Amino acid sequence: MDALRRPKRSAVFAALDTMLPVWILLNAVSGLKAEDDGMEELATEKEAEESHRQDSVNLLTFILLLTLTILTIWLFKHRRVRFLHETGLAMIYGLLVGVILRYGIPATSYHNKTPPSCSLKEGPVSTLLLNVSGKFFEYTLKGEINSREIHNVEQNDMLRKVTFDPEVFFNILLPPIIFHAGYSLKKRHFFRNLGSIITYAFLGTAISCFVIGNLMYGVVKLMQVVGQLTDKFYYTDCLFFGAIISATDPVTVLAIFNELHADGDLYALLFGESVMNDAVAIVLSSSIVAYQPSGANTHMFDASAFFKSVGVFLGIFSGSFLMGAATGVVTFTKLHCFPLLETALFFLMSWSTFLLAEACGFTGVVAVLFCGITQAHYTYNNLSEESTKRTKQLFEVLHFLAENFIFSYMGLALFTFQNHIFSPIFIIGAFIAIFIGRAFNIYPLSFLLNLGRRHKIKGNFQHMMMFAGLRGAMAFALAIRDTATYARQMMFTTTLLIVFFTVWVFGGGTTPMLSWLHIRCCRRKSDGPQAEGQSKTKQESAWLFRLWYTFDHNYLKPILTHSGPPLTSTLPAYCGPLASCLTSPQAYENHEQLRDHDSDLLHNDGDLTFMFGDTAITANGASGSTSEEALERELDSREQELLSRGTRGFFGSTPHLDADLRQHSPKH
Amino acid sequence: MDALRRPKRSAVFAALDTMLPVWILLNAVSGLKAEDDGMEELATEKEAEESHRQDSVNLLTFILLLTLTILTIWLFKHRRVRFLHETGLAMIYGLLVGVILRYGIPATSYHNKTPPSCSLKEGPVSTLLLNVSGKFFEYTLKGEINSREIHNVEQNDMLRKVTFDPEVFFNILLPPIIFHAGYSLKKRHFFRNLGSIITYAFLGTAISCFVIGNLMYGVVKLMQVVGQLTDKFYYTDCLFFGAIISATDPVTVLAIFNELHADGDLYALLFGESVMNDAVAIVLSSSIVAYQPSGANTHMFDASAFFKSVGVFLGIFSGSFLMGAATGVVTFTKLHCFPLLETALFFLMSWSTFLLAEACGFTGVVAVLFCGITQAHYTYNNLSEESTKRTKQLFEVLHFLAENFIFSYMGLALFTFQNHIFSPIFIIGAFIAIFIGRAFNIYPLSFLLNLGRRHKIKGNFQHMMMFAGLRGAMAFALAIRDTATYARQMMFTTTLLIVFFTVWVFGGGTTPMLSWLHIRCCRRKSDGPQAEGQSKTKQESAWLFRLWYTFDHNYLKPILTHSGPPLTSTLPAYCGPLASCLTSPQAYENHEQLRDHDSDLLHNDGDLTFMFGDTAITANGASGSTSEEALERELDSREQELLSRGTRGFFGSTPHLDADLRQHSPKH
Repeated sequence: MDALRRPKRSAVFAALDTMLPVWILLNAVSGLKAEDDGMEELATEKEAEESHRQDSVNLLTFILLLTLTILTIWLFKHRRVRFLHETGLAMIYGLLVGVILRYGIPATSYHNKTPPSCSLKEGPVSTLLLNVSGKFFEYTLKGEINSREIHNVEQNDMLRKVTFDPEVFFNILLPPIIFHAGYSLKKRHFFRNLGSIITYAFLGTAISCFVIGNLMYGVVKLMQVVGQLTDKFYYTDCLFFGAIISATDPVTVLAIFNELHADGDLYALLFGESVMNDAVAIVLSSSIVAYQPSGANTHMFDASAFFKSVGVFLGIFSGSFLMGAATGVVTFTKLHCFPLLETALFFLMSWSTFLLAEACGFTGVVAVLFCGITQAHYTYNNLSEESTKRTKQLFEVLHFLAENFIFSYMGLALFTFQNHIFSPIFIIGAFIAIFIGRAFNIYPLSFLLNLGRRHKIKGNFQHMMMFAGLRGAMAFALAIRDTATYARQMMFTTTLLIVFFTVWVFGGGTTPMLSWLHIRCCRRKSDGPQAEGQSKTKQESAWLFRLWYTFDHNYLKPILTHSGPPLTSTLPAYCGPLASCLTSPQAYENHEQLRDHDSDLLHNDGDLTFMFGDTAITANGASGSTSEEALERELDSREQELLSRGTRGFFGSTPHLDADLRQHSPKH
Repeated sequence: MDALRRPKRSAVFAALDTMLPVWILLNAVSGLKAEDDGMEELATEKEAEESHRQDSVNLLTFILLLTLTILTIWLFKHRRVRFLHETGLAMIYGLLVGVILRYGIPATSYHNKTPPSCSLKEGPVSTLLLNVSGKFFEYTLKGEINSREIHNVEQNDMLRKVTFDPEVFFNILLPPIIFHAGYSLKKRHFFRNLGSIITYAFLGTAISCFVIGNLMYGVVKLMQVVGQLTDKFYYTDCLFFGAIISATDPVTVLAIFNELHADGDLYALLFGESVMNDAVAIVLSSSIVAYQPSGANTHMFDASAFFKSVGVFLGIFSGSFLMGAATGVVTFTKLHCFPLLETALFFLMSWSTFLLAEACGFTGVVAVLFCGITQAHYTYNNLSEESTKRTKQLFEVLHFLAENFIFSYMGLALFTFQNHIFSPIFIIGAFIAIFIGRAFNIYPLSFLLNLGRRHKIKGNFQHMMMFAGLRGAMAFALAIRDTATYARQMMFTTTLLIVFFTVWVFGGGTTPMLSWLHIRCCRRKSDGPQAEGQSKTKQESAWLFRLWYTFDHNYLKPILTHSGPPLTSTLPAYCGPLASCLTSPQAYENHEQLRDHDSDLLHNDGDLTFMFGDTAITANGASGSTSEEALERELDSREQELLSRGTRGFFGSTPHLDADLRQHSPKH
């Protein structure tokens, strides 16, 4: 009875619920015990035990993989190896383990017979009852199974077990990565380049998707002509491939940018684009799936279906955006003095954003991204100093583990995934298509943007952005989500290869490329960018940005955080009572200090001081606190934050200079 | 096809994979889209969507529950309410939501028909194939289903969905709680009272288990006589109940002890006993399950089966203990300067202990407990300052969330669990039995222990221990794990009620009880216990403890950590080369400092300094560093740690005095 209850599980959870398999040491005891049971129960129980043991071993494999990755990363950081990023390393280890699992272990199947089958006239149902001599057993649908695979359903158990439910990536592993990305976007250069980033992310991803989709359709036609295509491959499939492969993920490049302190604007453009285009790609791909022309299974263009898809895209995106931003704003906590409660609350609110969006039919990942951005901008200022550290570190660890897990799983999947379809023409075509797609995204849009930008995106920056079009976790997660059809299986295999190639080759080539393109890297922290900062900001910040900044600084921040000027001084006089009711006492205090010691603004302003890390700039403080100058100073302070935070975020190390110092200390 | 792949999931994971249900805003769009699909696919897809949406809503319910709990706890802490602990609160909120789910929401079933069934002659298999006009679908066994429930398999979907797979508690929620408990055991009073704690935990739990088991067997016999028992209830079932209900969990009491700074010895006895008896109870219960007398289903005593069970107990326990301790010792990291890597590694190693134990047939929870204790003792000293904070905080948050989740789930389960069996006689009998069992545990063992102890366990301490026999997370997790039979269902219901009663009544009565029993509470941190500490330790520490301490201090610590004297000075001369190879350079450095500035020992010794928190005691430092005096000092420093850590651990707040100060500041 107990044994029967156990198999109620799937994927990772299966891999977790592994109680009492009584295996190695107690094998004898369990054998004795089993004798007394009926033979039927014995078989089921033994099967369950074996399966549980294997689940534990499999999950343990992943954990040891991660452990190995961490140890090697540490060695690399210690020896300042830069050509291979931790994600690239995780993939290599994954590949190795995949090879061992595939070729090194004999088939461990405990019985190779075909499972019993029964027939029904109706279509598949989610719940099926099995009547065994009066007793009823409940069965859950697992999925359709290929007729040629029927005989080895129980075979290759190891390889099957090591395969996770694809939704795990979306619901467990991507959210912390995306949230952390959003949470790290609170940066000076990001807001300054917001317009360009949004253009690249939305227009650029759409261009890339359609260019790749159309090129791939050509490749598919070619394959049909030369007889390489054995099953259906529609135009919408090609577009879907275009959407999933348009999600860039330049973690490797950004890590090196951080370490070398490459140009802040370029960093913001790349990071911002990669974060936002993940959101665009995920919504785009589901819109394409929703594109269903009236005559089923035709690949002709249908205008109404197209507009329906566009509607779905706009609906899902704006819904997710609003939901994320709203939750981000709502979670302004006042639980000072209880950092544990604050951290827990912060974590729960981020997660509930994800679930709320999913429950409402939006995309949780997108909502979580905008929730992260909003929380970094508003909620972060309300947290106590202790909690800001805690939340940052909590999400850092989660992000680190999730990212490396996905990349090592990718390595593993190349050998353990059962339905790979390697098609040389498709793969070569895809490689060419993604480069053309990236070029059609970057160069024309940069040209257009440069018409409007005062501070132009230079040619070498454009080449670097072109080069940094790596593919990563999001493309993989979207590709593995549905591998039911021939087309999707071919896409999955190709995506995997593209991720490998771009992460290893382009990731490894970042440092040479930076010097080849003569992109300035300031070795010290607060030198170049800060000195130029003052003049740059005035030149570039567009009127739209200024408008938003003023609104944010004068109204939103005072309402939502304890920082900023009190509303009583920014709102018109007739709003007095409302203003004083919405302003927190702390804001008054901050404002008093702001008036009294203007030059010490950044030091007294409670919620800004701690952001500096170890570097404080009081030199900037000039008299006269107009909104514009406050903007300059605040942005400068964020510049500092970018550098100190960024390093920790991506390297998990103390800042550069500290590391230098330590290397010279006798201990190492 | 896509929709068919989705239902491959279970329990919590099911509750997570909830992509794209296109519900509220896009309801219209999804309706339009669905039109084009075949009717069959439509039904399945709609079903899947509906189910996914509901999963999200359900998980969201739990998260909002936790959020509400956190906000109320904050309010309570702010107003210094002590009669209700956060876990008690979580249960109340859970109860309320349970009532709403049960009675407030109409049956949301989308189709109430009985699922199709098919017949097989063979016994239930784990995998079943369904042949629908040539297409094959794979089904997984979910469990046996009662024949009376066949018709509402799909009914009461909400209540079914809100029910987690019981293994979730064991594999996801208990490990962080237990690990955190083990990790917090690094305390002076714990090691001083180790013998007593082990006696209470092993002998006491066994006594309690057998007393309760036998009393309950009497109750069951009585129920048979008065005709209240409608199904089978064996003697082994009674013993099993005795085992699961013997796991005490006085979180509420300990939290109040911490806040009031009650006697350190009493705290250590209670905390140590509760942590260890969880491990004993879990292994004891599985040994009882393994007790299968030769004639199946008889409840007569069988000596060989009994000794087999004892063998299982000893095997599992010692195996888990050794595995946990070994992994704890192995994870001594040297990744200084990279706190993120260190924290991630620490986390992964703790988890891999759990999985390794499970894979080898031991009990993961027990292994994790001893891993935590070992890591706190050795690995903790090797971590960098930043990492110690991070790991502590990480596990603190995980423990906090897991604990409150379990307690709020308990509240929920009272109304949402479908198979409750409320039997007044059994419940009243159980209440009486647990008190008698507790009394037979505490009083005779205290009497025996007092024969050997120099520092006696006084009468009022014994009464307090008797009073603090609360039941909590472990008893619940063990009870919910198997609710397949009539007996187990009745046990589960009774356990739930016992947990509610003890947490609310005894938890709430702790403060009055403390004053009624005249148990001294020192309001200030470092006064009483520290002053007495010096004299006490010498009196009480048994020769066994001293022997162990010397061995640990002279050999284990130098090998496994950077602290302690170098091996070269503790090992005999002929072991010189081995000693110098095993000693880390840092240990030499520490030792130099130790010799040079002996009175500053605690300040210079790198890995001890940061443990103090904000309180440093240099006053104790006397000249002459014999092993005994070092012991005194080290234990004293742990005393400090106990007080500062304990408060944070259980309240997540800054220490008492700080809180006092803040309350008087104008900000609040």
